[in-house]
Amino acid sequence: MLPRGRPRALGAAALLLLLLLIGFFLFGGDLEYERPRGAAALDGDPPADRGGHNLSDCVPARPLPPKCELLHVAIVCAGHNSSRDLNTLVKSVLFYRKNPLHFHLVTDAVARNILEMLFHTWMVPAVGVSFYDLEELKPQVSWIPNKHYSGLYGLMKLVLPGALPPDLARVIVLDTDVTFASDIAELWALFAHFSDKQVIGLVENQSDWYLGNLWRNHRPWPALGRGFNTGVILLRLDRLRQAGWGQMWKLTATRELLTLPATSLADQDIFNAVIKEHPGLVQPLPCVWNVQLSDHTLAERCYSEASDLKVIHWNSPKKLRVKNKHVEYFRNLYLTFLEYDGNLLRRELFACPSPPPPGTEQLQRALAQLDEEDACFEFRQQQLTVHRVHISFLPHEPLPPRPHDVTLVAQLSMDRLQMLEALCRHWPGPMSLALYLTDAEAQQFLRFVEASAVLSARQDVAYHVVYREGPLYPVNELRNVALAQALTPYVFLSDIDFLPAYSLYDYLRASIEQLKLDSERKVALVVPAFETLHYRFSFPSSKAELLALLDSGSLYTFRYHEWPRGHAPTDYARWREARTPYRVQWAADYEPYVVVPRDCPRYDPRFVGFGWNKVAHIVELDAQEYELLVLPEAFTIHLPHAPSLDISRFRSSPAYRDCLQALKDEFHQDLSRHYGAAALKYLTALQQPPGPA
Amino acid sequence: MLPRGRPRALGAAALLLLLLLIGFFLFGGDLEYERPRGAAALDGDPPADRGGHNLSDCVPARPLPPKCELLHVAIVCAGHNSSRDLNTLVKSVLFYRKNPLHFHLVTDAVARNILEMLFHTWMVPAVGVSFYDLEELKPQVSWIPNKHYSGLYGLMKLVLPGALPPDLARVIVLDTDVTFASDIAELWALFAHFSDKQVIGLVENQSDWYLGNLWRNHRPWPALGRGFNTGVILLRLDRLRQAGWGQMWKLTATRELLTLPATSLADQDIFNAVIKEHPGLVQPLPCVWNVQLSDHTLAERCYSEASDLKVIHWNSPKKLRVKNKHVEYFRNLYLTFLEYDGNLLRRELFACPSPPPPGTEQLQRALAQLDEEDACFEFRQQQLTVHRVHISFLPHEPLPPRPHDVTLVAQLSMDRLQMLEALCRHWPGPMSLALYLTDAEAQQFLRFVEASAVLSARQDVAYHVVYREGPLYPVNELRNVALAQALTPYVFLSDIDFLPAYSLYDYLRASIEQLKLDSERKVALVVPAFETLHYRFSFPSSKAELLALLDSGSLYTFRYHEWPRGHAPTDYARWREARTPYRVQWAADYEPYVVVPRDCPRYDPRFVGFGWNKVAHIVELDAQEYELLVLPEAFTIHLPHAPSLDISRFRSSPAYRDCLQALKDEFHQDLSRHYGAAALKYLTALQQPPGPA
Repeated sequence: MLPRGRPRALGAAALLLLLLLIGFFLFGGDLEYERPRGAAALDGDPPADRGGHNLSDCVPARPLPPKCELLHVAIVCAGHNSSRDLNTLVKSVLFYRKNPLHFHLVTDAVARNILEMLFHTWMVPAVGVSFYDLEELKPQVSWIPNKHYSGLYGLMKLVLPGALPPDLARVIVLDTDVTFASDIAELWALFAHFSDKQVIGLVENQSDWYLGNLWRNHRPWPALGRGFNTGVILLRLDRLRQAGWGQMWKLTATRELLTLPATSLADQDIFNAVIKEHPGLVQPLPCVWNVQLSDHTLAERCYSEASDLKVIHWNSPKKLRVKNKHVEYFRNLYLTFLEYDGNLLRRELFACPSPPPPGTEQLQRALAQLDEEDACFEFRQQQLTVHRVHISFLPHEPLPPRPHDVTLVAQLSMDRLQMLEALCRHWPGPMSLALYLTDAEAQQFLRFVEASAVLSARQDVAYHVVYREGPLYPVNELRNVALAQALTPYVFLSDIDFLPAYSLYDYLRASIEQLKLDSERKVALVVPAFETLHYRFSFPSSKAELLALLDSGSLYTFRYHEWPRGHAPTDYARWREARTPYRVQWAADYEPYVVVPRDCPRYDPRFVGFGWNKVAHIVELDAQEYELLVLPEAFTIHLPHAPSLDISRFRSSPAYRDCLQALKDEFHQDLSRHYGAAALKYLTALQQPPGPA
Repeated sequence: MLPRGRPRALGAAALLLLLLLIGFFLFGGDLEYERPRGAAALDGDPPADRGGHNLSDCVPARPLPPKCELLHVAIVCAGHNSSRDLNTLVKSVLFYRKNPLHFHLVTDAVARNILEMLFHTWMVPAVGVSFYDLEELKPQVSWIPNKHYSGLYGLMKLVLPGALPPDLARVIVLDTDVTFASDIAELWALFAHFSDKQVIGLVENQSDWYLGNLWRNHRPWPALGRGFNTGVILLRLDRLRQAGWGQMWKLTATRELLTLPATSLADQDIFNAVIKEHPGLVQPLPCVWNVQLSDHTLAERCYSEASDLKVIHWNSPKKLRVKNKHVEYFRNLYLTFLEYDGNLLRRELFACPSPPPPGTEQLQRALAQLDEEDACFEFRQQQLTVHRVHISFLPHEPLPPRPHDVTLVAQLSMDRLQMLEALCRHWPGPMSLALYLTDAEAQQFLRFVEASAVLSARQDVAYHVVYREGPLYPVNELRNVALAQALTPYVFLSDIDFLPAYSLYDYLRASIEQLKLDSERKVALVVPAFETLHYRFSFPSSKAELLALLDSGSLYTFRYHEWPRGHAPTDYARWREARTPYRVQWAADYEPYVVVPRDCPRYDPRFVGFGWNKVAHIVELDAQEYELLVLPEAFTIHLPHAPSLDISRFRSSPAYRDCLQALKDEFHQDLSRHYGAAALKYLTALQQPPGPA
């Protein structure tokens, strides 16, 4: 790249051309050269036509940083929606990258919660993450009046030189609404073009905003020409600190705010005002590194000439709906990474050995020890799979926890999405739901919720996406994810194909209060389960109505026909007459739906696929001496549905049953190990005449 | 790239280094250089370490062909499975490409059928396709005894110089089992390195096969050292033709076959034998352009050093199961494109204007005329969407058509996959099923069929994948795709949630014979429809059993409770008693399931989403004077299921009903236009008291 207006460089270029003509003569066409892409700089010049020139003009192309150099990226991210955007941005960066990366994430508590879990479970080799508390940095910018939709978060980029580690010399700063279409190392390599005085690399604005006069009284902040866009920034942090950046931007901002009421474009206004005052600070970057798709964009001048777009910037709150005749093209790039299976990015950088992410080594050893010929290989492999988890996928505002409150906990996959509206009508309280989805399905799910008035209205339902990986449904891992995210003192451990009595939420809270339970007391409140085999069905509004339907044969106790043992201890006969809670004893294969304190034992994640996953949990509760109390007015009803794909695949397989038996045996061995002689009764119970698994 | 053993080039390299040192001095570090990736050549040398060198050694990097040059690719493809592979390969090429492309496909009839439809409906800008008949070329190679799993198809690459258009000078030849991880233009650019005598560019084999002695009596064909792999070939067709390639390889092959019984690796043996004889013909290519993952691969020497792999070659019939400790890494690259949404590749090449694919202009005009504010915008847009269609997605061997044979025609999406096994048990005859899936779901579907003994056993079920695009279910377009692919003279137009009587297939064929129907006669045989609301249900094995279930209230006539008009004209009372077929008259909203000649009217594709789609088809049959004959022993039963996501999304929407009404009005207008006064009765019928839409 030849910086403009430097005669020494121009003279050198002429000499180089001469030398290369000699080289060309000697090599007789064996070599090809290309003009640098970097030549398409600030002024929007197209890159040189490759046709005809490729053998004659030699300047180096595609400079890259040293192999395996660690590249640093900083991103400000707050809230649920930006966390989803960040996920997509990171996927696009990882797809093309060939270098180790470190992400510096300046986040609020919501985003930190989500992203810590996401990166922890993603386990991408050669990717580091650090978090910085946005709240702590806020006072440094909160004095600035700002009208931009990004709020204070936009301004946060100004304080990065002070916030990031003092030994960090360079960083690429990105908005969450950019998508990469190339290797980020090529962007990093542009640092090499900075002169000694340059500290900030930026792409020119692709709109006329800073030229002013867009409307009457439109008075933008000062800028050089069209000014620069701050969606993609290269920062020389070391030099900024030396130059007293912290004072510099505050002085400029304070002075401008004497005549201007507020920033309109947040940090961008201030960066531009500083640059206007100190033009030597900026290194203009080629336009392809920040193709800006705002409503009045001039980006076409950039992208219609360049064959090689590098970064797309959706810098408009309207995002994909932006009016741009080529929006389809850009939308496709964006959708590519929105729907891209993030699991596929867990690939090593062969050429750059790096310490494996925490936990990976142990995991790989365990995976390596598996025997591929073992009939239960798929089970073992699934058990060892670490699923990528995106908690609180959608915005969610839980109420402050109340002492007797209960969260409904369940898990589902795409084929049960249509249960959600009915469930919301039946359960007016908080819910924590784990969804087992692919990245593409997560987007379908998002659209499904947005299109549903019932679901959009609910702020107390938390959706946690667990990304699909492996052939077997990790039912208990999903339950544990949903359980871990419940915020109330009690949880109702349900299944997605059950609808609770309309009154259940209120009744449970009242019962917890009346029974004077506290979360120290080990009690499991049993909610008796029923089922209808009828597809169309009128839900009973009271216990009396339920009993009438039971008597008329429209309802049955749950799994009455195939597996009565699963709920026999609930003692439905006694329940008919009961007016007060009554205690029942554990028996083999008991799997009631229960309400327990949030800190109850977790589900055993070894049970993947179908079978015995709830039974094992109830055994664990009993082993830990939870009292089982049946509630006389509580009920929940199972609705019929076609068998899920996952079930269909395995139900008929004898190998499947054998593996399930093996899991049960191992579970009992572990039980004896933990609880000693007390666990003997579970083994004895197994000797009873068995029913179906 | 510096070809080995050319002193002139070595001297030139030394001079260049000197010149560059001067350049470096002058530029003072403002420029970055990189050693050519091409330096990692034949012998598996790693590319130069970028660290430390990047400012000092200048040779050009990433040569590219002239901007917008049309690149040619030839692929041999036969059968269903290779067609699926080709789809994945093409997706990987299109993802990275920036140039116009022309694919030259040498295919058998099966692959041509599939791929013509695929490319025709894909409508990718700046992509041309030509087909060449594999059968015609076969005689040129069928005399060669060959033991390779690719059969004769592998040998076909030898005859490309004669088969491709005489004015085509260069072509890249690819096996269907390669995946691109970079821009194919970079590969094309390597043609520039060919000397005047070189005609074939190849990567060295990454196995010891051609060294011999892998086992006792292992005697490979002659080769230079490890020989070359022919999964990726650059061919100078013009020079090959001039050099008499057609004679050259035949002479060599004939001579070698005097002492060797057959080729083991098909074309590769012969290419290598020719090269051994004429080493000057070959230009060795860098190993990254064909990273070979066979069982005993030495590829690690290549990929562990290169940070930038270009092409992965799964050159083993075992493909993804190959034992390679890094297979996960490569599998991820492959899965990326296997599951990649091919619709996203329909993007223009802005920088290279090219004539739009056939039909696109008209389509874009129509799309541009749509009013985004129109309440029915989504309907209009969906109607105009051209879906990518992959017919015969799985291997399929239809029986020769028999005169009275009937194909069951239906369509489904992922949420009805579990119906397929039951359907196969109920219908032992041919089926043509359209599946509305994403690319990723198509892979899940493939695994589902492979895991099912029932489905794998059937050779007479054709699955046609229509790739999802747009918010509304294109029900009638799907039906038309399935209908168009039926090969028998009659079709049973069914829906996926119906199970026909076990005897229906035989009974229909017998009835068609007894009624002396021929495909000229416009008859629609009505199959009376019933439904069960019970989830668990024992299917009646005869009409008598069905009537008993009807009387006991376990079965109902179809939609008896919500929409009796839909099937009222079938006259269930008469059917109870009937012993012979009886004629019935059309009435408003009639939508029976019928058996008709294959050339029946198509479904009206304007009906997208749900509602009125079958009704309109029956109107069309009646308008074309089809006779409606109810069969006395035929029946089919609807099974209950949860509403599909697509239905749930719209059922409650009043706007949806309004749009459906608009579609109905337009349908009737078109009907009047086509059938004149005769269509008056349909409008009159509309005036009747209406039921639900």
